[in-house]
Amino acid sequence: MLKIGIIGAGRIGKVHGESITKYVKNAEVKAIADVFLNEATEEWAKDMGIPNTYKDYKKILEDDEIDAVLICSSTDTHSKISIEAIRAGKNVFCEKPIDHDLSRIKEVIDELKKSKVKYQVGFNRRFDHNFKAVRSAVAKGKIGEPHILKITSRDPEPPSIDYVKVSGGIFLDMTIHDFDMVRYLLDSEVVEVYASGNVLIDNAIGKAGDIDTAIVTLKMKSGALAVIDNSRKAAYGYDQRAEVFGSLGQVSVENDSNSSAVISTKDGVTGEKPLFFFLERYMQAYAQEISEFIDAIVNDTEVPVNADDGLKAVLIGEAATKSLKANRPVKISEIEY
Amino acid sequence: MLKIGIIGAGRIGKVHGESITKYVKNAEVKAIADVFLNEATEEWAKDMGIPNTYKDYKKILEDDEIDAVLICSSTDTHSKISIEAIRAGKNVFCEKPIDHDLSRIKEVIDELKKSKVKYQVGFNRRFDHNFKAVRSAVAKGKIGEPHILKITSRDPEPPSIDYVKVSGGIFLDMTIHDFDMVRYLLDSEVVEVYASGNVLIDNAIGKAGDIDTAIVTLKMKSGALAVIDNSRKAAYGYDQRAEVFGSLGQVSVENDSNSSAVISTKDGVTGEKPLFFFLERYMQAYAQEISEFIDAIVNDTEVPVNADDGLKAVLIGEAATKSLKANRPVKISEIEY
Amino acid sequence: MLKIGIIGAGRIGKVHGESITKYVKNAEVKAIADVFLNEATEEWAKDMGIPNTYKDYKKILEDDEIDAVLICSSTDTHSKISIEAIRAGKNVFCEKPIDHDLSRIKEVIDELKKSKVKYQVGFNRRFDHNFKAVRSAVAKGKIGEPHILKITSRDPEPPSIDYVKVSGGIFLDMTIHDFDMVRYLLDSEVVEVYASGNVLIDNAIGKAGDIDTAIVTLKMKSGALAVIDNSRKAAYGYDQRAEVFGSLGQVSVENDSNSSAVISTKDGVTGEKPLFFFLERYMQAYAQEISEFIDAIVNDTEVPVNADDGLKAVLIGEAATKSLKANRPVKISEIEY
Amino acid sequence: MLKIGIIGAGRIGKVHGESITKYVKNAEVKAIADVFLNEATEEWAKDMGIPNTYKDYKKILEDDEIDAVLICSSTDTHSKISIEAIRAGKNVFCEKPIDHDLSRIKEVIDELKKSKVKYQVGFNRRFDHNFKAVRSAVAKGKIGEPHILKITSRDPEPPSIDYVKVSGGIFLDMTIHDFDMVRYLLDSEVVEVYASGNVLIDNAIGKAGDIDTAIVTLKMKSGALAVIDNSRKAAYGYDQRAEVFGSLGQVSVENDSNSSAVISTKDGVTGEKPLFFFLERYMQAYAQEISEFIDAIVNDTEVPVNADDGLKAVLIGEAATKSLKANRPVKISEIEY
Repeated sequence: MLKIGIIGAGRIGKVHGESITKYVKNAEVKAIADVFLNEATEEWAKDMGIPNTYKDYKKILEDDEIDAVLICSSTDTHSKISIEAIRAGKNVFCEKPIDHDLSRIKEVIDELKKSKVKYQVGFNRRFDHNFKAVRSAVAKGKIGEPHILKITSRDPEPPSIDYVKVSGGIFLDMTIHDFDMVRYLLDSEVVEVYASGNVLIDNAIGKAGDIDTAIVTLKMKSGALAVIDNSRKAAYGYDQRAEVFGSLGQVSVENDSNSSAVISTKDGVTGEKPLFFFLERYMQAYAQEISEFIDAIVNDTEVPVNADDGLKAVLIGEAATKSLKANRPVKISEIEY
Repeated sequence: MLKIGIIGAGRIGKVHGESITKYVKNAEVKAIADVFLNEATEEWAKDMGIPNTYKDYKKILEDDEIDAVLICSSTDTHSKISIEAIRAGKNVFCEKPIDHDLSRIKEVIDELKKSKVKYQVGFNRRFDHNFKAVRSAVAKGKIGEPHILKITSRDPEPPSIDYVKVSGGIFLDMTIHDFDMVRYLLDSEVVEVYASGNVLIDNAIGKAGDIDTAIVTLKMKSGALAVIDNSRKAAYGYDQRAEVFGSLGQVSVENDSNSSAVISTKDGVTGEKPLFFFLERYMQAYAQEISEFIDAIVNDTEVPVNADDGLKAVLIGEAATKSLKANRPVKISEIEY
Repeated sequence: MLKIGIIGAGRIGKVHGESITKYVKNAEVKAIADVFLNEATEEWAKDMGIPNTYKDYKKILEDDEIDAVLICSSTDTHSKISIEAIRAGKNVFCEKPIDHDLSRIKEVIDELKKSKVKYQVGFNRRFDHNFKAVRSAVAKGKIGEPHILKITSRDPEPPSIDYVKVSGGIFLDMTIHDFDMVRYLLDSEVVEVYASGNVLIDNAIGKAGDIDTAIVTLKMKSGALAVIDNSRKAAYGYDQRAEVFGSLGQVSVENDSNSSAVISTKDGVTGEKPLFFFLERYMQAYAQEISEFIDAIVNDTEVPVNADDGLKAVLIGEAATKSLKANRPVKISEIEY
Repeated sequence: MLKIGIIGAGRIGKVHGESITKYVKNAEVKAIADVFLNEATEEWAKDMGIPNTYKDYKKILEDDEIDAVLICSSTDTHSKISIEAIRAGKNVFCEKPIDHDLSRIKEVIDELKKSKVKYQVGFNRRFDHNFKAVRSAVAKGKIGEPHILKITSRDPEPPSIDYVKVSGGIFLDMTIHDFDMVRYLLDSEVVEVYASGNVLIDNAIGKAGDIDTAIVTLKMKSGALAVIDNSRKAAYGYDQRAEVFGSLGQVSVENDSNSSAVISTKDGVTGEKPLFFFLERYMQAYAQEISEFIDAIVNDTEVPVNADDGLKAVLIGEAATKSLKANRPVKISEIEY
């Protein structure tokens, strides 16, 4: 029975805590730490049967019984805590991104080279049933050589302007998931990026120096082309689709909804909207990613998403950010770190 | 170039006239006759380039240049004109049903035995792209041995009460198409029928001695079972679907609509309604059935829907009518004629 | 924290045990009893953290700490254990059917009248996301007055012939779920049943006195008509669909599948098959039904499926069985008990 | 009755000839001219009832009875014949593109300024039922302000290498239709284009100086973004889809297929492929565009696609071509003519 410590008791920390408690066979949460530890979190921990709650995450790192930590705190603390946890000999699951600063990601990777701990990054979409089905079809050669990948990724609501200001920009905050998907679905590296974007939803986002609508074209090492379209606000809910087109055909996935019910009346033939947002859509994917992290530790196998995957996605994000500003295609090799 | 005469210039007569003029290579309409011949019809005939218009259909039968007639007049005249046309040596396309009276259908069949003319009955759905695809899948063995057939057949609006009174009842007027579909899709004969029904849409239909909602179960000679559900009023339009389930799987068809457009908003994901009614849904099927009738004459081959098919559908309709009244299953062999 | 005892450690007993352990907040399994208790079950209980395992279910009934029992043993023991459990003051969740013998169901109901315990019957489909969406649309009047209900319910594989022999026949074993669905989706009682059926899949099923393919028509007190089609073997997997058609339109639900992936190649446009069988399709529904049972106890509210629902479904099953044998419609009021 | 002359009796010339003969009320084809006039074309003209066939198109221009000409000859003759026809006072329908050379398109436009004839360009997709439904939804404000347009446009087979060499490149030959669609669906002008592409299907296409796979991003005057993805070879058939996403939601259209038949077996749930190519998919659109051209002449109203539309699409094509070569975004205002 692996003992887990969770650092950061926000929404995603609790999602992982609940997943481990309910679905993961070989692990249990021993402690949770949050700098803003409050009564609600204490109660939640009690419900989950988590014995220890701390304000200071270092107590988790100091606990010799704890085998692995989940870093679910704010992004600016990810790399610092990652390094401390690695040094403390803990296996680490770190929410995305590892850092907005490439040099700090590099420090984490350097630290990992001196260590034998497992380090997994939280790209949850790789564990989604639909995207896994796309990956599987591509990997099995069902569509031949991939030529074109289209990803549609749109949120139902923009985040708060306060969040936008510290988010690192749409490409590092939101599109980063899609950049990882591009690499995952095509099994090839990105060579060049061209990003176009605009502020069409909320001028305040523009004033905060960001955009809310984007189309990003990517050229892959394999020769394939990929395109991502993003919006911060889809009126009908969380829109998460992908299509890979290749020499023998195409594989595509649609959104999930709450039921397959279709109502036909004089007004039309109406089905349900997509599931509202990431918690609804990816709940099972979150459980699956943690489960595979635990398995990798227990069986001493490779983690499914490693620090290098974390780095690559940020590199592409930096290239996209630069491309948008310069209004020209940017090679990944141009990004220094 | 075959010369055609059309008897009856109502809606369906004009549909056929237009089809022949526009789509059928080897035929042209020489004359149209209608007991209520009016200016609108004269104009329509002129537009179509039809040289002769009559009040008396006998002028068509007397015209030696005319090779084939289309009987599109009211149902109570079908069998009489059929016999006269056969005796006049004309090939005959007769709208369904040949007659409500089985003995008169028999007279037509007897007359045909003495003649060499072609005689086709207007079961247009056999020529619909969707139902043909079902038939083709079944015939090719794609679903193995058929076990269960489900037909959904619902009109968008009930006919006038005046029409209901002379319609012969829902089973001879509306379900008769579905009875033909059962035989066509399963390529087997009906042995027994159980009909249940109710008046749920308009009490006036009940007062006229008919029902407006029905479920009919049919046992086939092959052992397969079939079920038809009917309604005189589907709020969303003409509902025409079928599913055949067999030992190796299932083939099913959906309704056609005007476009594939789907609009997703905060209110749901909405597509178009089915095409409104039979003229919209079956326009191409009407052209196809006439085209195959002409082909059968030109090439001296079997017509795709013969007088026996016309008889069988009425027999099943009679059995269904009897079943509903007696509230028990009725064997086709019980129906005398 | 409610303490639960599970009687019968077969497939469904374990499903419920796991659901309670993982998803149900206010309950925990204290004991499990199985007359064939073996090592695998002992291990499973250990995994789940269930402290007590017995061969004799009476030890559960005698345990004063246990608030509720789940009867998941073989059908022939349901009514007997139900009565014993009620007498022991336990709340009871009983798998369907309560009994094949109507008089024994009546005994259970009589016993319940003398008691204050909750008694819920295991019609899991009422808790399925799709069927709940149909029910909700109907209840909210979105399709107006219901006129026609169509249920398609087909298993992927027939049970063993040994099972068929003791199953009570297809209508009491398999269609019983659909009979409950008819009552649930239309919120009306069945008045009359006509059942047609055949042996098309396996002659051994016929030799065992049963059928494997059926179409059942039901007349409702509300005037609506319903039709169920069943097969013991759908090559493509578990087929569980429903459509309710009414004065204002229709609501329909499709099967669930593992993903929405569609592969388009020169051979066609291919999606995934439906989920294979009931464990895959209804896993969440099983968790939900147990959760609502626990809630009803904790909050002292009505159970969502009561003993009368259990009785009604068997009554309809008996009427269908009689209808098939006599080849005539059978009124529910004809069935004595 | 308008008299029409058709110049060029290739595939598309015959499509229009047949459309006019069969579907267009107020027009008839009086003559067809083709520099390679052969027996097959003579026979086809006879079938259609077209009285005159010529080798020299000038005979059509000289015929005072002819009101309008359809220019369906090879692209390099379009602008020359356009100018001659305008000077001869004929209304002109010209297949796309007017010319590969922008200065020659300008000459046609200059000629038109001196004349009162109608001039329509053959962007047939504007008349497709699906794309019209998208345009209609956008125009009615159903999706609010448009933010993102996605067009997928893929051919089932690449053209011959000989054709590729004279085609003007993929953007002027194939994507030109999509460029027109972008303007039509968003009702806004293109400001800037970024084109990425590759040779993934056939190296011979690369050797001929062209690409076979492309993603083009377009910035619109309205602020909206658009993306087009093209392939010269989709294994599953002609892929013609569009999605417009806006502030209130999204409208999308799928491919058409021959029937809605879906076959479910142990191997999956399989529907039909898209209609094979443009003749199958756009047959009705071709009839509709000619019909609207005739209507514009008869009623003296604006043609639905004018010479300026023809110019704009070529301008965008030139910008895309330049963008691909320079690997940078190109403003439409950079293209001189």
